[in-house]
Amino acid sequence: MKLLSFIHQGRETWGALVGADAIVDLGKALPQYATLTDYIASGAYLNAQQDVAHKTADVKLADITFLPVIPKPEKIVCAVRNYMDHHQEVLAAGMHRELSEEPPIFLRVWRSQVAHGQPIICPKVSGSLDWEGELAVIIGKEGRNIAEADAFDHVAGYSCYNDGSIREWQFHAKQIASGKNFESTGGFGPWMVTADEIAPNQQLKLVTRLNGEVVQSSHTGHMIFSIAKLISYASTIFTLVPGDVIATGTPAGVGWSRKPAWFMKPGDVCEVEIEGIGTLVNPIAAQA
Amino acid sequence: MKLLSFIHQGRETWGALVGADAIVDLGKALPQYATLTDYIASGAYLNAQQDVAHKTADVKLADITFLPVIPKPEKIVCAVRNYMDHHQEVLAAGMHRELSEEPPIFLRVWRSQVAHGQPIICPKVSGSLDWEGELAVIIGKEGRNIAEADAFDHVAGYSCYNDGSIREWQFHAKQIASGKNFESTGGFGPWMVTADEIAPNQQLKLVTRLNGEVVQSSHTGHMIFSIAKLISYASTIFTLVPGDVIATGTPAGVGWSRKPAWFMKPGDVCEVEIEGIGTLVNPIAAQA
Repeated sequence: MKLLSFIHQGRETWGALVGADAIVDLGKALPQYATLTDYIASGAYLNAQQDVAHKTADVKLADITFLPVIPKPEKIVCAVRNYMDHHQEVLAAGMHRELSEEPPIFLRVWRSQVAHGQPIICPKVSGSLDWEGELAVIIGKEGRNIAEADAFDHVAGYSCYNDGSIREWQFHAKQIASGKNFESTGGFGPWMVTADEIAPNQQLKLVTRLNGEVVQSSHTGHMIFSIAKLISYASTIFTLVPGDVIATGTPAGVGWSRKPAWFMKPGDVCEVEIEGIGTLVNPIAAQA
Repeated sequence: MKLLSFIHQGRETWGALVGADAIVDLGKALPQYATLTDYIASGAYLNAQQDVAHKTADVKLADITFLPVIPKPEKIVCAVRNYMDHHQEVLAAGMHRELSEEPPIFLRVWRSQVAHGQPIICPKVSGSLDWEGELAVIIGKEGRNIAEADAFDHVAGYSCYNDGSIREWQFHAKQIASGKNFESTGGFGPWMVTADEIAPNQQLKLVTRLNGEVVQSSHTGHMIFSIAKLISYASTIFTLVPGDVIATGTPAGVGWSRKPAWFMKPGDVCEVEIEGIGTLVNPIAAQA
């Protein structure tokens, strides 16, 4: 089942994609759940198939404005340097790092997110907006100190993320939060695919394209720290709650490690396609 | 004016401290503002003196349970290594860092906060819970790309912060977010003092005590990046909104740079006192 958040006729709602161009507006049909996060938190999403089975597809895909799948996650936990092929390209670019024994993570704020179809904003202060196609994991069940063996019980589903990065701000100091949190730089969508459709640790092809040209092509089997490890590690720090997002890191092919470096500029279009999920598309626009 | 968030008779509310032991329950008197954040966002806090002038102090300080001043800030932006005396002690401890031209920042999540009087929790996984007494700035007015010259127009007030840090998790990888976000490790309180009582860039004495012994004694004039610079820098990245918190960094005297290192353990009591604001007190307890 594909679940999504969107605006229809000026109203923020959420629903399920049924067929290629048809949506059931579940925000209208199930008003007890104001948001997709509420639906996930209730556990009702586990029966999403039944919830849409006898309902009319009342909204056309062409008539909506997408919202980020989870518009305001309480937490967005992001893995750094979590693909072996990306790690190797960073080393080749001359930036020495040893692999750490525990996953390096940072946090994004929800204001840094942008929906499918909406522009990723290239800030005025930067000429180094870079792409990072990633698999996003959406948490379905609250937990703290989750064992790796139990981690997938806490996964509601998966989506595509573009962890858009402002490289020179990322390197201003030793902490990368600055370059990873510019408003409207983190693409998230177009929808989440519920976890019943993707097996734990299933190897998914991940491709990022800029203006149609493939710039990243890898698969989620190249992750250094597994999804289970990331969930377990993060939940040792804080309680994970429904709607939290874990961005699992990006594979090789980012722009700044190229010679010459290649960055996104207004007018470009960036796509992140993940097997079994779909394609997140974002045009690039200049900051107003 | 001192404004605070608290629980009284099982009800979450907020109010103003009037005198040594008396609170006006403004959450009750001004029900249009459900939280202190709502009150700040409305701008009404600028007339807080008038709002309490003719009201009865209906709650005793002894009868409340404090909440973090802002229980759920949208963003908690923290400066790293922002006091010259702390920078020097870190160098002396053998960790080389050059001063950066822009402020290094990281993010905390609201779940990492803990109120005045409530225990800072020493996680099971760690033996290196460290103190960091800090001045917290609370944002009063929304803004993006705020000029340094305008920064103080966006400050609602000031409070004490204890940026409790799990040192070995902070050093797991190059990113410190892990060690800075353990649940219930960031003391915040006891109240905020509105900005009309503290001049911009006023040099405030800051003292941290562990079990009564002074472990940090400095003043806010030792900041490397000023409050105005931190606000301007952060607002270049994202919109700052009312209730956002900027923790401005800690001075010299943290536990891990001592020889031998000195960490907090269950049964200890940590205090952060800032001139003109008050004293934040947190006992230390083991994770359940």
